[in-house]
Amino acid sequence: MEAQTLHTNFNLLIEIFGTVSFAMSGAFAAMQKRFDPFGVLIIAFVTSVGGGTLRDLLLDVPVFWMRDLVICTMIFIGAVLAIVVKSFERNFKVTLFIFDSLGLGLFTIIGIQKGLNADLHPIICLTLGTITGCFGGITRDLFLNRIPLIFRKEIYATACIVGGSLFLLLTYYSSFSYMLVQISTIVLIVVIRTLAVKYQWEMPKFYESRDQGEF
Amino acid sequence: MEAQTLHTNFNLLIEIFGTVSFAMSGAFAAMQKRFDPFGVLIIAFVTSVGGGTLRDLLLDVPVFWMRDLVICTMIFIGAVLAIVVKSFERNFKVTLFIFDSLGLGLFTIIGIQKGLNADLHPIICLTLGTITGCFGGITRDLFLNRIPLIFRKEIYATACIVGGSLFLLLTYYSSFSYMLVQISTIVLIVVIRTLAVKYQWEMPKFYESRDQGEF
Amino acid sequence: MEAQTLHTNFNLLIEIFGTVSFAMSGAFAAMQKRFDPFGVLIIAFVTSVGGGTLRDLLLDVPVFWMRDLVICTMIFIGAVLAIVVKSFERNFKVTLFIFDSLGLGLFTIIGIQKGLNADLHPIICLTLGTITGCFGGITRDLFLNRIPLIFRKEIYATACIVGGSLFLLLTYYSSFSYMLVQISTIVLIVVIRTLAVKYQWEMPKFYESRDQGEF
Repeated sequence: MEAQTLHTNFNLLIEIFGTVSFAMSGAFAAMQKRFDPFGVLIIAFVTSVGGGTLRDLLLDVPVFWMRDLVICTMIFIGAVLAIVVKSFERNFKVTLFIFDSLGLGLFTIIGIQKGLNADLHPIICLTLGTITGCFGGITRDLFLNRIPLIFRKEIYATACIVGGSLFLLLTYYSSFSYMLVQISTIVLIVVIRTLAVKYQWEMPKFYESRDQGEF
Repeated sequence: MEAQTLHTNFNLLIEIFGTVSFAMSGAFAAMQKRFDPFGVLIIAFVTSVGGGTLRDLLLDVPVFWMRDLVICTMIFIGAVLAIVVKSFERNFKVTLFIFDSLGLGLFTIIGIQKGLNADLHPIICLTLGTITGCFGGITRDLFLNRIPLIFRKEIYATACIVGGSLFLLLTYYSSFSYMLVQISTIVLIVVIRTLAVKYQWEMPKFYESRDQGEF
Repeated sequence: MEAQTLHTNFNLLIEIFGTVSFAMSGAFAAMQKRFDPFGVLIIAFVTSVGGGTLRDLLLDVPVFWMRDLVICTMIFIGAVLAIVVKSFERNFKVTLFIFDSLGLGLFTIIGIQKGLNADLHPIICLTLGTITGCFGGITRDLFLNRIPLIFRKEIYATACIVGGSLFLLLTYYSSFSYMLVQISTIVLIVVIRTLAVKYQWEMPKFYESRDQGEF
């Protein structure tokens, strides 16, 4: 198999795995709120396509999930998988966290890549990657009427931005293979988020004065 | 009048009636929150065009309410009508419910039709119909800082999806006239939602453990 | 310098000043919630580009902040400025209010102008101006999980609509220079909002029955 095909296939794999991860993260969050199956499916859908949809609208390219049934099928599988996993595993917090972090890492990369393909400035690409990674989760949390994760654990966005910066640096200045660059970025984002959660456990007072002094 | 014209006119009628219904639903909700007339108008606008705007952005077609003043005028009439109705009728709950259900049914159909016109897969069309039907109400509820109706009474989305599926089935496999297909779908959606409200009256405990176990 | 160049330069000045104002308004709001620097930057970004992004998507023109780094740089400067100002000045309420009002006035004008350039009906342009002015702040407040300012102090939208109407009236029916029309509009919007805040101080009971009678 030649490099180009491998590259394309690896990108497709990332997109599919990110879609399933975010769909599961959305489905878990919706099941926590005791939604019926259709509600679970809708939240899975919104979490999964939210970021990429906004990215494609901003880039004025065809919206990725409308071209065929691949993404919708993946989301359906992700939602069903989440319902199945739920019957084995009751610790939603950890499961949701893992899939959310994976989705974040995977989607950030896709967003940056699409920006680079459109010949945008690296900083704009980084913004686009952050939007792609974060917007689905934000929409999920808004729809579930929760304080968006990204703003309760701000390191969420930080992970996204730091990971994305590494991706851009390695792409421009390293001789690493494309796949290695992508895997490094995903690992970095997941590691940062895991450390972030530990960090919050140690500093829960960080948010104590949250609701004081409203405008 | 030939069939084509009748068909176009009936579609226009559905769009106008759906716009006025959702505008009234938005205006009632805003009046409940004691908004001033401009606030009422804005919520009426957002509720009415929210779904269709997202649909048109996704399809990359001109946004429907920007081409002329028809939609804006209908929204204005809807908002004024709501203010007038309010002085006769104080039972917002029922009135809001009726207009919300009607708007849902009407807009779901329009979304599916626009998707079919763009040669999308029926499942994608159904998604588009659900988005068109539900997104205006979700935006209204987010802006009013209420838990979105669709997620308090999930059967809302279910009504949309089941109704849309009937519409697609009848369009593809029945010999019903187009108008009959549309009317059946609207009736089905309103009936499902009415039953859903009754269902919730019987099972209020369904949401009891809502806010437990946040991520 | 000829009139056309002056006009273009003044428009650019308005866009830059509006961007910095909204970025600072977003940054102040995020700092109130004790966000880390990346969180502050993201809220500054969202507040600043939210309205204009939706406007450009609706008009189907390239999204303004993606073409170059000018807007992103301005947002960065605005966020840093806000952090610096914070160390001198602890009265967030007033500072946030001033920058929010300025941004509102400036962005409303830009929205109307872009609508007029696209040959839209004046009423649609006014709608577009209101969207450009208000949507960034709404998104900021949704993301911060606050009741959107626009719906706590509805005069916010009223200021936007009244100011925009003045702008259209003066553009069509007066012989004022373009710059004078723009400055009058901004002053009117800031004055209306300032009076509105006073008005609310006198009528805090206006919202008392807010959460009663939910649908």
